[in-house]
Amino acid sequence: MLKERLGEYTNVINEALDKYIEVNKDYDEELKKAMKYSLMAGGKRLRPALILEGYRLFKPNYLEAVPFACAMEMVHTFSLIHDDLPAIDNDDLRRGKPTNHKVFGENTAILAGDALQNYAYQIVSEELVKGNNTENKAKAFNIFATAVGDMIKGEFIDISFEGKKINLDELHIMHENKTGALIKASLLMGAVLAGASENELKILINYADKIGVNFQIKDDILSEIGDEKILGKPIGNDKLRGKCTFVTVLGIHKAKEELDIGTKEAIKVIETLDKNVQFFKELALFIKERDN
Amino acid sequence: MLKERLGEYTNVINEALDKYIEVNKDYDEELKKAMKYSLMAGGKRLRPALILEGYRLFKPNYLEAVPFACAMEMVHTFSLIHDDLPAIDNDDLRRGKPTNHKVFGENTAILAGDALQNYAYQIVSEELVKGNNTENKAKAFNIFATAVGDMIKGEFIDISFEGKKINLDELHIMHENKTGALIKASLLMGAVLAGASENELKILINYADKIGVNFQIKDDILSEIGDEKILGKPIGNDKLRGKCTFVTVLGIHKAKEELDIGTKEAIKVIETLDKNVQFFKELALFIKERDN
Repeated sequence: MLKERLGEYTNVINEALDKYIEVNKDYDEELKKAMKYSLMAGGKRLRPALILEGYRLFKPNYLEAVPFACAMEMVHTFSLIHDDLPAIDNDDLRRGKPTNHKVFGENTAILAGDALQNYAYQIVSEELVKGNNTENKAKAFNIFATAVGDMIKGEFIDISFEGKKINLDELHIMHENKTGALIKASLLMGAVLAGASENELKILINYADKIGVNFQIKDDILSEIGDEKILGKPIGNDKLRGKCTFVTVLGIHKAKEELDIGTKEAIKVIETLDKNVQFFKELALFIKERDN
Repeated sequence: MLKERLGEYTNVINEALDKYIEVNKDYDEELKKAMKYSLMAGGKRLRPALILEGYRLFKPNYLEAVPFACAMEMVHTFSLIHDDLPAIDNDDLRRGKPTNHKVFGENTAILAGDALQNYAYQIVSEELVKGNNTENKAKAFNIFATAVGDMIKGEFIDISFEGKKINLDELHIMHENKTGALIKASLLMGAVLAGASENELKILINYADKIGVNFQIKDDILSEIGDEKILGKPIGNDKLRGKCTFVTVLGIHKAKEELDIGTKEAIKVIETLDKNVQFFKELALFIKERDN
């Protein structure tokens, strides 16, 4: 079921993203090209999928959540473009392609990131002026903006950790913000838009926290021992830069063990929700087993 | 009247901005320091003042508009931090102080800009979840996000013009976006929040368009023949970089003439509004006569 749904959501999101960029009269053509380059570079669309499936848990027709899913993917893409900049991670490759600043120059990459962050909010604002389901949309907007703030905080913690020896707690705090915040917010935004109850949201938060950590552990494992061709970026860069990761802090064996335990826990948590949670059970396994 | 009101608004905004940064638990202390450095660097608070006075035209108690005014100033500050970056304008001084990246490093400056842009929207989202005056708040949010997109577009046009010879029309398009969009949006957001009619908004748009251009012409004049000490940045940099400005395109004499005409027109327009517009008449004159 997971594969079909992810495929379905990827199609829906790619089409909607493409349209959003094309219809926008507010950006210069060249700037749009730079925005689109990274936005359509073959991302996994995990966060949009969480929004759409989070919505679908409670309401069948998830069309209402698509603009929010696009906004989320735009913010995620903005964060990758700025992360890759020479002044931050100085990465040349992302998903097997030259990074944005390598293709368009540093000045355009900075502005393309800024523009994507802003366009995300412009899309949310367009949903809010429609005047229906306003209370839930406002809540989703608030969850979104707060999580993006956390993500930027996580990125800042990350650069301030570089070259330092940090402990497991610090590593967790960094990742809870840098990757966990948007993953959690995605699931919550979908559920909130569809009118989930406080109790239901609690279960989803618990599940999202777990898959957020699992996702990062797996990322760190892949960065260390993944296949460079499948991953689309060089292996072993983290170690080279003296970056602390779950692998460098725990060792590869213990990292894999943590991932195993975390996966089982995530599945156990989501099973307590009285809904069709098949997607989320498979997703927890997929996060553990993916090779890119 | 203008001076007292600008003083009053500056105090209100500075206090509110300071509080917003202090209470935010989402950002790391060091990152907050970088955000605050540029936010509290002595800006004129023109855009927040337009929001508050725009509100006050229609409703006396402007407290409701303060969060939006803070959000606007945060976005304005984010745009200055990113503009000054080595990859964009490469400026060392802003308002007489070293630019953000000179003090905190380029990586922190990029993230401080990102964080300020995002915090602006987080503040707007907090206003929207309150659940009162929601329709007008959603409209103000939409005006805001659209204008920020235009501003980024203007910045992009600016960098793509650098070193090129451009005509007066192109110069106008660049500035309508780069500076005009936020000035116009500020006035509109205040008025919309206070429930102004479509007809009243039309007059305000017309006035704002005019003072936006006037503001830029004056900026360009000051950049050419201003007092370096009062201005807080070096004089003649635009010419040095081959930047086209109203002064380089029109010549200093014609630029001053345009500013004169534009000021008279702005005053004429705002007088058609059946409200107390004293502030806006004085503001048009102030924009023409300011020395920084």
